[in-house]
Amino acid sequence: MSSIEAERATTGWAARDPNTGPEDIYVKVICCGICHTDIHLIKNDFGKSNYPMVPGHEVVGEVVEVGSDVSKFRAGDMVGVGYIIGCCRNCHPCKNDIPQYCNKTISSLNDVYTDGKPTQGGFASAMVVDQKFVVKIPDGMDPEQAAPLLCAGVTVYSPLNHFGLKQSGLRGGILGLGGLGHIGVKIAKAMGHHVTVISSSNKKREEASDHLGADEYLVSSDATQMQEMADTLDYIIDTVPVFHPLEPYLSLLKLDGKLILMGIINTPLQFLTPAVLLGRKTSTGSYVGSVKETEEMLEFCKEKDLSSTIEVVKMDYVNKAIERVEKNDVRYRFVVDVAGSKLDQ
Amino acid sequence: MSSIEAERATTGWAARDPNTGPEDIYVKVICCGICHTDIHLIKNDFGKSNYPMVPGHEVVGEVVEVGSDVSKFRAGDMVGVGYIIGCCRNCHPCKNDIPQYCNKTISSLNDVYTDGKPTQGGFASAMVVDQKFVVKIPDGMDPEQAAPLLCAGVTVYSPLNHFGLKQSGLRGGILGLGGLGHIGVKIAKAMGHHVTVISSSNKKREEASDHLGADEYLVSSDATQMQEMADTLDYIIDTVPVFHPLEPYLSLLKLDGKLILMGIINTPLQFLTPAVLLGRKTSTGSYVGSVKETEEMLEFCKEKDLSSTIEVVKMDYVNKAIERVEKNDVRYRFVVDVAGSKLDQ
Repeated sequence: MSSIEAERATTGWAARDPNTGPEDIYVKVICCGICHTDIHLIKNDFGKSNYPMVPGHEVVGEVVEVGSDVSKFRAGDMVGVGYIIGCCRNCHPCKNDIPQYCNKTISSLNDVYTDGKPTQGGFASAMVVDQKFVVKIPDGMDPEQAAPLLCAGVTVYSPLNHFGLKQSGLRGGILGLGGLGHIGVKIAKAMGHHVTVISSSNKKREEASDHLGADEYLVSSDATQMQEMADTLDYIIDTVPVFHPLEPYLSLLKLDGKLILMGIINTPLQFLTPAVLLGRKTSTGSYVGSVKETEEMLEFCKEKDLSSTIEVVKMDYVNKAIERVEKNDVRYRFVVDVAGSKLDQ
Repeated sequence: MSSIEAERATTGWAARDPNTGPEDIYVKVICCGICHTDIHLIKNDFGKSNYPMVPGHEVVGEVVEVGSDVSKFRAGDMVGVGYIIGCCRNCHPCKNDIPQYCNKTISSLNDVYTDGKPTQGGFASAMVVDQKFVVKIPDGMDPEQAAPLLCAGVTVYSPLNHFGLKQSGLRGGILGLGGLGHIGVKIAKAMGHHVTVISSSNKKREEASDHLGADEYLVSSDATQMQEMADTLDYIIDTVPVFHPLEPYLSLLKLDGKLILMGIINTPLQFLTPAVLLGRKTSTGSYVGSVKETEEMLEFCKEKDLSSTIEVVKMDYVNKAIERVEKNDVRYRFVVDVAGSKLDQ
């Protein structure tokens, strides 16, 4: 068996304790997005993967049953589950409703739940999730549309909101045009920003302007164009998941501009201090988002009629989909039609 | 002549156009601090030094004469001049009274003024400075005490003020205990912060607690102590002027903590993205401060009865003082008694 085969995901039924606790919600999965983090975990890129693994953390489903202490949800509700499904509940971030920054978060896959059992993601017919980590999907929002917003969407929305960058009229840059980047362009445009897509090549120029509605397209290897754009951006959402120099992007920022890193990169990134000092620029990062931010973001997307650009596939296509994500061969997010894949039969 | 002799500073009279323009203030220099930036420029560390050079940019003096359009100052006033003495006046930073972030600032030494002549710093009997860049020294503040505040003081005060870190009760770290660091400890303590001095060795432990009033002392090479202090600081003022890893210091910061870099370092600094993402931490920097911030800081220091720790020397000691600053052999700032050095005789 080759190593690629050894890493191949297998669809299957992931059984958990059938009892729904007082705070639990039993959710029948309708669909689930494929995020690059799933692939990192499937491939053991962080060296901490446990198998068998049920990936998937952009989960949309229907409430089937609720525990005795659940009042916010009832059977039949359309709900979402993202990357975080547990936290310590006592630390500063937990008490401030941003449990994604708790040091003891429990992820919806490849983690260990409070009952000592492995957590299992959304590529399964059902999930049981604590109500604290379940979000309401706005009425009328298509489940397949909602799925990519539950991780990619809130990952972009949260820092823009937190760092005071939600107001209209700002000039933003989106570095990298994959799953995160495409949602980034759409959310930034919906906030009323002038959006520049920054890419290493010209390949996605038409796509960025014609399909995603970006205002400008900047090729990072074009020194003249980079120079012309110096000191013009209020922020850059940097979605590049591999090593890259920061200097060229810091130079694009205005006074007080913010470079917001999204990629978990295990090679050190570098910058010279004058690139931040002389302009009071900031490099920072942000990690998914809270339930509160997710619900706010979903309402924002509904109000702005924002749609993700997705390719819906059945569960038996997942391995092929993963291969294609790795080659950036997807516009821009795969969503697996879990309910339509008839896992239970 | 050795290269050290070639770089040696020589005291002297620096003549400028004797006419005081309508916006100019003619200042008799009383005293002037020695900042590490002066030494960088004297030694041509940035490769852009022009000679002969008159260093000095923490200048306190007495107004002798004012131009016809000057209303804020009059003869006899005690005033200060810092690192910036000119700007474009039209850009976003200039229009927002933070000309230190203008791309066309004019420095008080080793620069070219609007009249095409070299700028000359405060190691001279007199200076002519545009009123826009002159600050009022509070009544009763000792000139020698005020001098180090005009660059070191405002360099620390400005980011604490700008980034919302002035309120009492915060926990701050001061990394490096030189000219900047010692003022940093004093200003942070005056703001009511719990202050930890972070140093590479135990050498300055007693000094930090007994003399400067720091609350804790953390040796960065002590892994156990560093681990115990993880996630405890709201900010770190990083005064280290040479390459150093950022990871250990980022790990000391709380959620939303800020690492504020002060050193102009020409070797890239490095960090892994999880160190900022997982805690929404920020690395940023700040560059001196505005006239408005300087005046506010001087009033703050007067109100808090804050004094710099200085060693006052005459002009004929400057070369020795520079040698000692380079060896960190000063507690903590040299101030040259310019008026008492009788340069004019």
